[in-house]
Amino acid sequence: MKPRAVATSLADAMAESAAAIERELDLLLDIGDGPERRLHEAMRYASLAGGKRLRPFLVLQSAALFKVSRASALRTASAVEMVHCYSLVHDDLPAMDDDDLRRGRPTVHKQFDEATAILTGDALLTRAFEILAEAATHSDPQVRSELVAELASAAGGFGMVGGQMLDLLAESLALDVAEVTRLQQMKTGRLIAFACEAGAILGKAPVQQRRALRAYAHDLGLAFQIADDLLDAEGDAALVGKALRKDAGAGKATFVSLLGAERARSQAGILADQAAAHLDSFDAEADALRRVARFVIERKS
Amino acid sequence: MKPRAVATSLADAMAESAAAIERELDLLLDIGDGPERRLHEAMRYASLAGGKRLRPFLVLQSAALFKVSRASALRTASAVEMVHCYSLVHDDLPAMDDDDLRRGRPTVHKQFDEATAILTGDALLTRAFEILAEAATHSDPQVRSELVAELASAAGGFGMVGGQMLDLLAESLALDVAEVTRLQQMKTGRLIAFACEAGAILGKAPVQQRRALRAYAHDLGLAFQIADDLLDAEGDAALVGKALRKDAGAGKATFVSLLGAERARSQAGILADQAAAHLDSFDAEADALRRVARFVIERKS
Repeated sequence: MKPRAVATSLADAMAESAAAIERELDLLLDIGDGPERRLHEAMRYASLAGGKRLRPFLVLQSAALFKVSRASALRTASAVEMVHCYSLVHDDLPAMDDDDLRRGRPTVHKQFDEATAILTGDALLTRAFEILAEAATHSDPQVRSELVAELASAAGGFGMVGGQMLDLLAESLALDVAEVTRLQQMKTGRLIAFACEAGAILGKAPVQQRRALRAYAHDLGLAFQIADDLLDAEGDAALVGKALRKDAGAGKATFVSLLGAERARSQAGILADQAAAHLDSFDAEADALRRVARFVIERKS
Repeated sequence: MKPRAVATSLADAMAESAAAIERELDLLLDIGDGPERRLHEAMRYASLAGGKRLRPFLVLQSAALFKVSRASALRTASAVEMVHCYSLVHDDLPAMDDDDLRRGRPTVHKQFDEATAILTGDALLTRAFEILAEAATHSDPQVRSELVAELASAAGGFGMVGGQMLDLLAESLALDVAEVTRLQQMKTGRLIAFACEAGAILGKAPVQQRRALRAYAHDLGLAFQIADDLLDAEGDAALVGKALRKDAGAGKATFVSLLGAERARSQAGILADQAAAHLDSFDAEADALRRVARFVIERKS
């Protein structure tokens, strides 16, 4: 066991993947030449801001399990990241979470304006589906249709957007642990699950392996969210790059407020181990995914 | 020539189609049973408000030209209408056009709240792509992928959303007729064009017929928009069901402000005739589409 070397190699792999996604997003987000280029500048501002690029990493790693072409995986990973970025742009709006800072920079409605931020989110979401549906993403249109349908299901009113609606109502709902779990499954879990399953869809994986990835993603997503709540309660705003302690201030139920920090931390650890265990049927090629499960609960930002 | 009878039969056909779309939207928009049902109620409020249902009518009529199944056509028409409705919900927001009234009812952010309205638009857009990608829309996944890619192109940053961005900038841009034409092509023309082409995609129509429909849609969309500007300048707010004279008040260039009402009216008439002429290669089965071209410039709402 050489934990330091392992950690370094995961960090390297994530950095390499993040750089590749940055290049791909840059290619996929044209700026055009009309007076409306302000919109495209804002789309690029929202998407090309660096960050961990966790979801794209999950797409690339799950795709690698099934020998999916790099081009297919990068386009799919970029589409997932666009959906993630659109959701942040809309969540940050004054009518929603009203945040001024994201990854240490002004949020889109601060840097541009509110109307531009609304349209930026709309256009990023639309572009994500366009990319998935285009022939360059996969030669088999059945695969492309499945990617679109599954991403839409994960991101829509019974997935991410529904979770965001629940989150807005949470202050008045006094949710218990089961309800907070459901909220977070919808709000962040579903998109993380799609990222993990995307490789299986692209690679036409056997149903058993696809199911294993789904189970992995389920536990990973929950561990990720508990860690997020811990960061919100205990993290360093300068490292995280956004305002913290908002949930507690708003009296919102979180895993930390419901379980206490200690139990939340131990729960996250159990989930991370459990996530990795779902990958037992894969060889060493799934090692990066196994390590990501520890990474999401140990990160500082 | 029996113009009265012709007009009545078009009105009947549009009413029949609008009723079918209302039923289909009702089926396609589940309400769920979680506390987030507020979102789904708002999605239904935004979509099940009646209206002309022009875009769905164009889908159904173009699909009928190629003997597309009713089920395929209705699902595709509903997806197009969801995209149209989402765009209205977001356009009406305080940060955008700030409208309180739509089709004679409070806009979504007035009836619910701003955050819910933002999420409602997001979820309707996402649902539209989900519907198109699902197998029930067409047995051939190539057709479904093409529908998704073409709708996304029409609705995205270089289509409808880009047009809306341009529209927001228009007050400060002093656009000329060519630029207003481009703006309107993006903002409303592209989605109308997709509605007309959708039938050809569903029916795997020969390229020539698809091109004819595209040319028809181009002129129809422009005629529609000029008529819209005329309605805004001269219409009856009670009939139209929303606030009028906003463009003139904001000093925005419109076809009416640039051409004057008389030339705008004659231009709309020429475009409507030209639109119908593009359908010369079709038989009587395209009569409803021919008549729609007159309808869009003669409507009072």
